[in-house]
Amino acid sequence: MTEHRLLPYRDELMPARIADSSLTPAGDPGEAARLRQWLAELGERSFTRARRIPLEEMTGWHTDPATGDLRHDSGKFFTVEGLDVHMPDGPVTRWSQPIINQPEVGILGILAKEIDGVLRFLIQAKAEPGNCNGLQLAPTVQATRSNYTRVHGGKAVPYLEYFQRSGGHRVIADVRQSEQGSWFQHKRNRNMVVEVTGDVPVLDGFRWMTLGEIHRSFRVDNMVTMDARTVLSCLPFAAPGLADRQTGPRDDFRSALLRSCRPEKGSLHTTGEILSWITESRTGRDVWTRRIPLRQVRSWQRVDGRISHVNGLYFDVIGLDVVAAGREVAHWRQPAIEPHGVGVVAFLARVFDGVLHVLVNARAEPGFVDAVELAPTVQCIPQNFDPLPPDRRPRFLDDVLAARSDRIRFDTELSEEGGRFHRARNRYLVVETDVDAAGDLPDFRWMTLHQLVDLLRHSHYLNVQARSLVACLHSLTSA
Amino acid sequence: MTEHRLLPYRDELMPARIADSSLTPAGDPGEAARLRQWLAELGERSFTRARRIPLEEMTGWHTDPATGDLRHDSGKFFTVEGLDVHMPDGPVTRWSQPIINQPEVGILGILAKEIDGVLRFLIQAKAEPGNCNGLQLAPTVQATRSNYTRVHGGKAVPYLEYFQRSGGHRVIADVRQSEQGSWFQHKRNRNMVVEVTGDVPVLDGFRWMTLGEIHRSFRVDNMVTMDARTVLSCLPFAAPGLADRQTGPRDDFRSALLRSCRPEKGSLHTTGEILSWITESRTGRDVWTRRIPLRQVRSWQRVDGRISHVNGLYFDVIGLDVVAAGREVAHWRQPAIEPHGVGVVAFLARVFDGVLHVLVNARAEPGFVDAVELAPTVQCIPQNFDPLPPDRRPRFLDDVLAARSDRIRFDTELSEEGGRFHRARNRYLVVETDVDAAGDLPDFRWMTLHQLVDLLRHSHYLNVQARSLVACLHSLTSA
Repeated sequence: MTEHRLLPYRDELMPARIADSSLTPAGDPGEAARLRQWLAELGERSFTRARRIPLEEMTGWHTDPATGDLRHDSGKFFTVEGLDVHMPDGPVTRWSQPIINQPEVGILGILAKEIDGVLRFLIQAKAEPGNCNGLQLAPTVQATRSNYTRVHGGKAVPYLEYFQRSGGHRVIADVRQSEQGSWFQHKRNRNMVVEVTGDVPVLDGFRWMTLGEIHRSFRVDNMVTMDARTVLSCLPFAAPGLADRQTGPRDDFRSALLRSCRPEKGSLHTTGEILSWITESRTGRDVWTRRIPLRQVRSWQRVDGRISHVNGLYFDVIGLDVVAAGREVAHWRQPAIEPHGVGVVAFLARVFDGVLHVLVNARAEPGFVDAVELAPTVQCIPQNFDPLPPDRRPRFLDDVLAARSDRIRFDTELSEEGGRFHRARNRYLVVETDVDAAGDLPDFRWMTLHQLVDLLRHSHYLNVQARSLVACLHSLTSA
Repeated sequence: MTEHRLLPYRDELMPARIADSSLTPAGDPGEAARLRQWLAELGERSFTRARRIPLEEMTGWHTDPATGDLRHDSGKFFTVEGLDVHMPDGPVTRWSQPIINQPEVGILGILAKEIDGVLRFLIQAKAEPGNCNGLQLAPTVQATRSNYTRVHGGKAVPYLEYFQRSGGHRVIADVRQSEQGSWFQHKRNRNMVVEVTGDVPVLDGFRWMTLGEIHRSFRVDNMVTMDARTVLSCLPFAAPGLADRQTGPRDDFRSALLRSCRPEKGSLHTTGEILSWITESRTGRDVWTRRIPLRQVRSWQRVDGRISHVNGLYFDVIGLDVVAAGREVAHWRQPAIEPHGVGVVAFLARVFDGVLHVLVNARAEPGFVDAVELAPTVQCIPQNFDPLPPDRRPRFLDDVLAARSDRIRFDTELSEEGGRFHRARNRYLVVETDVDAAGDLPDFRWMTLHQLVDLLRHSHYLNVQARSLVACLHSLTSA
């Protein structure tokens, strides 16, 4: 019989290399300035200018005469449809709403390569029409299936071949994950990190960055895109040795955070208990959704060239006219979702027995493939709750908003996907608390970071906001 | 701050207790006879007699005049509908078929309790109308949601309370899994094993069995139900210490099987590689399904009171008249699926570097929630392929059917779910091979048993046939 070398169950080397990358180079005062300058220079020749236009003026798109749905003339890209939602346990039990239907699974991929002994990641400076500012740091590749089958007739997506034919390269992460379940119907993207060893040409607009550099960019408002955040969250981040090699000042929070990354430190609940809680949440929660013609969505109206809720809350469906430079297509029109107000996305965090835990919420969103995913402690646009009675106000929102400044460990405004959402931003927070909300609340559990990272090897456990916050927490390990 | 005791990441005690239970009591010659006698005595007062009747005579059910779908008059239980399937990569690329739609998630639960120092499982002797014989060994509880909301007006399901309010008990396994994707549309059941410590009354028709006793029942044709097999497959079976305590004769196959249960022995592919392969399979494989009226299913006809394929293959939708004793309802009629022929469900197995691996197939079935699940090497009813050209014959079927008897490590005919299927049986096989089919075939991978057990903590990775075979493989660890 042939000899076969068996591979070990747990790869400890990759997490150590990732930890190395997150440590270097720390504390170079010129680093942030160089990055800003790079983005500013690029921004001269690579940009998008988006202008709101009435939905009626969206060349290339039409309103389906039978349903009122918004469709591209080619039948590709995405459609805006209606969804009828019945959620008996929610703060609102029954509603209908517009929703984006984009059934194709796209690829979000970051290329990795060891350069000068340190793992680096190929980051793209990307302009998106919905961004509130200029370029942001994005994955190497963002390709919808329409992109890579070239429906739009544009240029080929650079670096895509590493992710489409990953054989011969080393796959560090590869998992499909959901996106905004309030705005997307069953949207999923494939999150990939692939390590290459050969030569990789660095095209204009791309830059190798260590994980430390990327992490420090998380401190700047609207600098790291949602797509970059979700891919980074799927890294097998276990921080071995990081605790012993802390380069910055020692503090208890950071030590507890590093312990939270290591399975051997233990957790309040076993992973078996957490999985059973998720099964219970998914089995017990009734979420009925039904696609309906956009025309039949109740309490929404199409006036002044946009679709809005009658009380002016939630979001509008708007038309955009986009002029772009440095992209595959130079001019297009498209619908987009424009939310009303900046959201709050926060984990309450607490140290138990020296190990940081975050308070995770089993949350139903209408667009999820599987009814319930794990979400941040708080995830809402606060003003949407103004018309509701106080007892339906999101739990823990006031704990987050009223937190003392010395308990706020992370606080950055970050953008959601700028290709479908217009000016959608959330304030991402990690807030330390002494609240003990474990036993009493069936929809909340304290979990360690390594438990979340373990679940991120699999699809549809953490929603996109929770994944963003996992990346934010990881960023706090870098000095 | 309160003191909190953190729990270890990996529970090594439960797998050891499960291993203990699988070892005892080995080799008692009267054990099988006592079990047979218990089933025979029970069979006198607990049985079902099913008689085929024309669909038109199914009191309580009706044919929807608009669609031709078969529905219960209450609107509950399940419906038989049509499904239009487009699978460009399959042996047949486009077809339509009848399918059972039962969207509710039921509970399949086995109660566990330590008695005389050994973990035992409460097994129910259960008669199902579709069974080919009498009583079979079933989980403690099989409850559809219709059951436990008492739609049928029958008696309460005994022991259900341990699974509905598992707080205070120890949850050993709790995960939703798919069922036959060729016959069910998105069917899922919650598979649970719950350990109790208090007194549990043993009702008539129930029996505490060690895992060893249950394992030995796998050698008897049509003795362990599909529902019992799937729940047992979800046990955290890691066999610690079993290799040192082999009670039967030592043989290389069994040693390799026991090593396959232990993560630290390694595997041909890392779990990361396997997960990436699954993501690739699920993203790359196009499976389009659309529910259609049963009346519109092409190449199927309703004649002689049943629905059959025009060429007489696959299955029939039939009506059953059921008289039952010892069950909550004494008489009912229902539709059922009756397959044509006994299927073959087999793993090819090979020892690499002393560790047993089985050849797993990434398989698309129309009723899966997520397009592709891991399936046995071979899974088919051979005669369905008679009309197709030889190059579309299922791969490896002939390797299984032509195997030398000394390479056949497991070979038992087992029944599929007797509540929806009539006389549905498969020959389950584990066949040792020297075939090296790893690198060349994109839809197959060699995996160890512990890798499969790891995936079974999560939903929808292994289909019900693969789960059955995992339970069969575990049964081979008992002497």
